[in-house]
Amino acid sequence: MSRTLWTDDAGIVRTIDQTVLPFERRELTLRTLDDCIRAIRDMQVRGAPLIGAVGAWGLALALAADASDASLRRAFERLAAARPTAVNLRWALERVRARVADAGPARRAALARAEAGRICDEDVACNVRIGELGAGLLHELAGRGAQRTGTGRAGSGPAVLNLLTHCNAGRIATVDHGTALAPVYRLHATGVPVHVWVDETRPRNQGAALTAWELAERGVAHTVIADNAGGLLMMQGRVDAVIVGCDRVAANGDVANKVGTYLKALAARDNGVPFYVACPVSTIDAGAPDGGSIPIEERAARELTHLSGALDDGSRVSVRIVPEGSAVANPAFDITPARLVTALLTERGVFEASVAGVRAALTEGAP
Amino acid sequence: MSRTLWTDDAGIVRTIDQTVLPFERRELTLRTLDDCIRAIRDMQVRGAPLIGAVGAWGLALALAADASDASLRRAFERLAAARPTAVNLRWALERVRARVADAGPARRAALARAEAGRICDEDVACNVRIGELGAGLLHELAGRGAQRTGTGRAGSGPAVLNLLTHCNAGRIATVDHGTALAPVYRLHATGVPVHVWVDETRPRNQGAALTAWELAERGVAHTVIADNAGGLLMMQGRVDAVIVGCDRVAANGDVANKVGTYLKALAARDNGVPFYVACPVSTIDAGAPDGGSIPIEERAARELTHLSGALDDGSRVSVRIVPEGSAVANPAFDITPARLVTALLTERGVFEASVAGVRAALTEGAP
Repeated sequence: MSRTLWTDDAGIVRTIDQTVLPFERRELTLRTLDDCIRAIRDMQVRGAPLIGAVGAWGLALALAADASDASLRRAFERLAAARPTAVNLRWALERVRARVADAGPARRAALARAEAGRICDEDVACNVRIGELGAGLLHELAGRGAQRTGTGRAGSGPAVLNLLTHCNAGRIATVDHGTALAPVYRLHATGVPVHVWVDETRPRNQGAALTAWELAERGVAHTVIADNAGGLLMMQGRVDAVIVGCDRVAANGDVANKVGTYLKALAARDNGVPFYVACPVSTIDAGAPDGGSIPIEERAARELTHLSGALDDGSRVSVRIVPEGSAVANPAFDITPARLVTALLTERGVFEASVAGVRAALTEGAP
Repeated sequence: MSRTLWTDDAGIVRTIDQTVLPFERRELTLRTLDDCIRAIRDMQVRGAPLIGAVGAWGLALALAADASDASLRRAFERLAAARPTAVNLRWALERVRARVADAGPARRAALARAEAGRICDEDVACNVRIGELGAGLLHELAGRGAQRTGTGRAGSGPAVLNLLTHCNAGRIATVDHGTALAPVYRLHATGVPVHVWVDETRPRNQGAALTAWELAERGVAHTVIADNAGGLLMMQGRVDAVIVGCDRVAANGDVANKVGTYLKALAARDNGVPFYVACPVSTIDAGAPDGGSIPIEERAARELTHLSGALDDGSRVSVRIVPEGSAVANPAFDITPARLVTALLTERGVFEASVAGVRAALTEGAP
């Protein structure tokens, strides 16, 4: 099946326009630097790994048009400015720049193209590994929630594994497979019956709009719920494990992720449900001693006051849902303390969410 | 200021059509039994105390038109069926019926009218008392969140009391004052600076649509947030106390309230924030030993898949926000274990959320 970012038979870079999901699957052609800048800036692509990959391709396309030092510098700056807070974007741009900087202009485009391709392949390999490790851990948890609460029923077939996820850390946030959803796709592909409770994920609704869409496209059983419902479901024994992605992991194992993650971690702890965080090693910020040192982005009020959806005729509109006179606060992330995290799933292995665990993830098995 | 349900100078019963809030304040005239049934069934009025009061008036209006036994019986049945799960509605109807049953038809309409008025007055008195008790408890908590986390700043004026509430347990859920919001209005009226974090309250958005509207109408400072944000705000010391209403309290102090309440109670406990439940004694269900014995209503999927809002021109539309192919679950309530509840605020006093506390609430100070 296709990646989220791929080159077609003619070598043209293509992706999916995520601004029109879930109601339309529209492919986007990235032919120029400007196409890549627009895709990143307008959030046609989102998810740290995918943004980084598109940025790398943007640099390659810029160098294909003009391989001069001036072109490289200008393209780098414009791409980096398209989403200034995206750490992964700058990382990918720097990697491509380092690869081409000392090469003659004649070779730069090909080198950049190869490096962009490698960045994509490495993301896929990282996620495949997280998928394998996570699938191994999660598989044996099937039916545990029901057992714990005594709500399980004697049945024939194998117990369904009920997972809960927040936001979208799926394949469309990455080049393929996703991080938190990589184990889900792996289990599904190997015939393990898996069902995902999908948090709507207000205010941007990435769960309802993106996670539900990509699980449906791959035929994975899932149920969309309000962000408010997960606690009850865990109490009722209907969740065997929670698995989420992350934006940043501090040196002590505290996790910054989409706002609302912390509330699910609390409910998981209160009900004995394992809480896993899928985190490529690249999301570890050793410079942040703990969650308190990670800045929390405050986003536009309009994300909360307005909501975009489809009318019956399929056309999309934005409607106001908060009265004009009311103030609004919209923090994008929250901090889940390490003590609530069962384990960190990285491409290098499964680690404890602690100073020792994070240190091990950064050193053990490092190339 | 006007009640949510009142009789105008001509003695006509009037209320507010809550289906068009927050974008329009439209008054509704209840002249007949059918008007009352429609208001209850179509959720033009909601909130247990208000539904009960409108039901009582419905019976009075029916008896004014036809005071026969057959009329009484038929009106009772039709009103009770308008919202079959509303315990308060049946309670109010039974109270009016008991008042008029033995009276001659000539006196029934006046007796029913007087009883409906008493039910309204008693609701107001109950909420006033909860407001006084709650204001006393909450007043001294101002600035505690900031103190606890060391985020407080030395300032001149008095510290603002920052409360967080979920759903709408405000004056438009009752005849006046509300339950959870009664202390807020009381504090505001007595000059205490108070600010309310208003949970949006997906999927029906009662926070964004109703709580925000009624606080704005009374000039109370407030900020609408996604349901996901409250945990972060508590961790940051920006919440001094949480106060919510309830649908039902079990004999052991477990609380059934709008789905998502449990998650906020967990965050409050994790951050040392007091968590209060405003509950008229009428919401105590001594027949339910604990939260596990309270049935959780599963509501229509459309509440989650579609959302109603206003277009720029002010017209209201409903838009789809979940892809067609995705399943949806929509539990309306959750259970907050008694161990997470700091205290129950009733019109008879402040009680521990425990078997002993609930028993005391049912007996102490009972008339």
